[in-house]
This record gives sequence, structure tokens and C-alpha cells, in this order.
Amino acid sequence: MSSKGSLFVVSAPSGAGKTTLCEKLLKTLPNIVNSISMTTRPLRSGEKNKNDYFFVSETEFKKKIKNNGLLEYAKVFGNYYGTPKRFVEQNLAKGNDVLLNIDVQGAMQIRRKFRRNSRFIFILPPSMNDLKKRLLLRKTDTKLQIKKRLDMAKKELAYLNSYDYKIVNDDLKKAFGQLLSIVVAARCETEKRKVNLK
Amino acid sequence: MSSKGSLFVVSAPSGAGKTTLCEKLLKTLPNIVNSISMTTRPLRSGEKNKNDYFFVSETEFKKKIKNNGLLEYAKVFGNYYGTPKRFVEQNLAKGNDVLLNIDVQGAMQIRRKFRRNSRFIFILPPSMNDLKKRLLLRKTDTKLQIKKRLDMAKKELAYLNSYDYKIVNDDLKKAFGQLLSIVVAARCETEKRKVNLK
Repeated sequence: MSSKGSLFVVSAPSGAGKTTLCEKLLKTLPNIVNSISMTTRPLRSGEKNKNDYFFVSETEFKKKIKNNGLLEYAKVFGNYYGTPKRFVEQNLAKGNDVLLNIDVQGAMQIRRKFRRNSRFIFILPPSMNDLKKRLLLRKTDTKLQIKKRLDMAKKELAYLNSYDYKIVNDDLKKAFGQLLSIVVAARCETEKRKVNLK
Repeated sequence: MSSKGSLFVVSAPSGAGKTTLCEKLLKTLPNIVNSISMTTRPLRSGEKNKNDYFFVSETEFKKKIKNNGLLEYAKVFGNYYGTPKRFVEQNLAKGNDVLLNIDVQGAMQIRRKFRRNSRFIFILPPSMNDLKKRLLLRKTDTKLQIKKRLDMAKKELAYLNSYDYKIVNDDLKKAFGQLLSIVVAARCETEKRKVNLK
């Protein structure tokens, strides 16, 4: 696949602040677009279809898999999540950078497909205790769900070294500066910016 | 050599704004130090020994070469320039990043020695015309010297793709943001920051 833009794959344990950081990045930089995932999980309060996710039935999701329309997909807590392929490929070809906000399983599938022009970023909470506090404050999950998320977070952390970059989100401003820097630096890489000096 | 810090090697045609950008970087970020080069060229007005360069005689310089005390050296316009080895190695071992502001010949020597933990950055003027204007405004060189510098710049540009990053200095604020981003992003790289999550 010919690609002029770069893919930025961002993973983080639920509650590490990934969504806030990614939204800020999309608002701050030009020429970067967000890939919207497809999922079979139910909408959470405040979420909108086609904005946060494409919410679809399991039948629709499986059809998409069969038609090779997903770049990656995974089943997490009994729900499917996947990345529609066409949107990503079209934007990369146009020269846009694409932000993929996905879980570790999905990221590892992408890693095998895009060796070049991709950057893998893991966002960490300062500590497991801090993560627990953030999940409790969010008030969207039951205690059992929070326990599951924390167990999940521990498993995800085992993949940390498969990522190119890690950002510890102990200070939002600092963490955002780091995320922004990773994208800006990638845009300065020599093989990507052919400058003709007259 | 064991090294915890990274080496940032910055080259640019004379007049591209390298010095201003590097000084700003050193003032802005903690844990980055400037490697002071050694040279046999005469002081320019406003320069200070041990601040801008270690100004030494040709005899002293050659002694340093013989004692293997230089990381790289080159002869440019009849003058020697080199990078004292010990300062760089000691700082990298301490975990500081080191900024090396050197010419293309020197950079290529360093490239062969440091494959890991080093980033090579080339700073470009927006155009050759712009570079000529900047050199004329600087009023430190004769017309012949300016012509030589422009010829040199063209030769140096042939090495652009041996660098990891390029920064076009058409806007100081933007160019500085890019330089800063390259260093900040490198500091987020996974192999360098082992985080223990308790």
C-alpha cells in the first residue's frame, strides 16, 4: 500500500486519559484524522453513533470481517471492536496522518501489517492505584467491571515494550506535549518530507 | 559504550539559524548539554574561548587526534574542527542528552560510531536565496567567503537523506517547536524509559 501519511496507534488502559489526550491532539494539529472504530458493545451514556464508534450488531460486524473490511478486530469483554480499513487507507494515501485509538490486541495486529510509517504509543497512568481512583470517579462501571478493567490493565502492560513510545499521564499538559511531539517529530523525518531547495 | 542519554547531532549550512535554535533548546529543556567543539580557526568578534569553541593551535589539535581524544574531526576551509570525546561520553553515561552542533563531515563520522541512541537533524534555510541574504546581513564574511559558504551548502545538502530529521527554518517558532519535539519524542521512546508501574 502506498502511503504518504503516518499511522499513530494509541493504546492505554481504560481510565489512563487516552480519550482526552487524543481529542486535544486532533484539535491542535492539522492533517490528522481520527479513525472511528466499529463495535458491537452498547452505547454508554453521552456517546453518539458514528461519532464515538460505529455501533453495529454482531451480524453486521461478522459480515464486515468476512468481506475483509477491517484492518484489525478483537473481542474484548464479549464485545467486538474493529477498525474499518477503507477510511484509514484513503487518508494515508491523501497524506493525512491517522490516529487509531485501539486496544492492545488490535494494536498488535496492526503492528504486523504496518511496519513502516506507523508509530505505536502507550499511555500509562502514574500507578495502578491512580487508575483505580480514576475509574471509580468516572462512575460508568460497576465494581466488578472496575476489577475486570484493572486485571485487564495489568495484562496490557505486558505489551508495553512492543510499543515505540510511552507516555506517563501524571500531568495532562506534559503528557499532551509528549503526544504532540511524537507526531511533530515523525513529520520531520527525512524519508517523509522531500524538500526541493531551489 | 553504555549510554543512558541520547546524542542529538545538528548540522546546517552556515546562516540557516542553527545556533539560535540550539541555544533556545538548551535554555528550554533540562538534562541536555552542549558539546563544545575544538577548533584551530581564529575567534570571530563576539566569540569567547571555552564558550563558543575551545580555540587551540594546530599543534595542540594534532596532539588531541594522536591521543584518540576526539570523537570526530574534520578540516573545513583550512581549519580543524573536532569534538572532544570525554565530555560526550561522560554526559551520556550520566543520562544527559548531548547536543552536537557540527558540520556534515563530522556528523557522518559520528553516524558510523553511534548507531543507537543518536538522532541526526539537518536544519535547512527556506531557499538558497534566503541563505545568501542571511549571510550578507550577518556581515561577518567577505563576498568571497559567502560564495564559498553557498557552494559548501550545496555540497552539504547532498547528505540530507543521511539525517533522520529535517527542519526547514522558515519560521523560527515553528522550527524551534520541531527541534524540541524531536528531543521530547526521543525521550518517550520505550527502550529508554523503563517505567515500573506499582
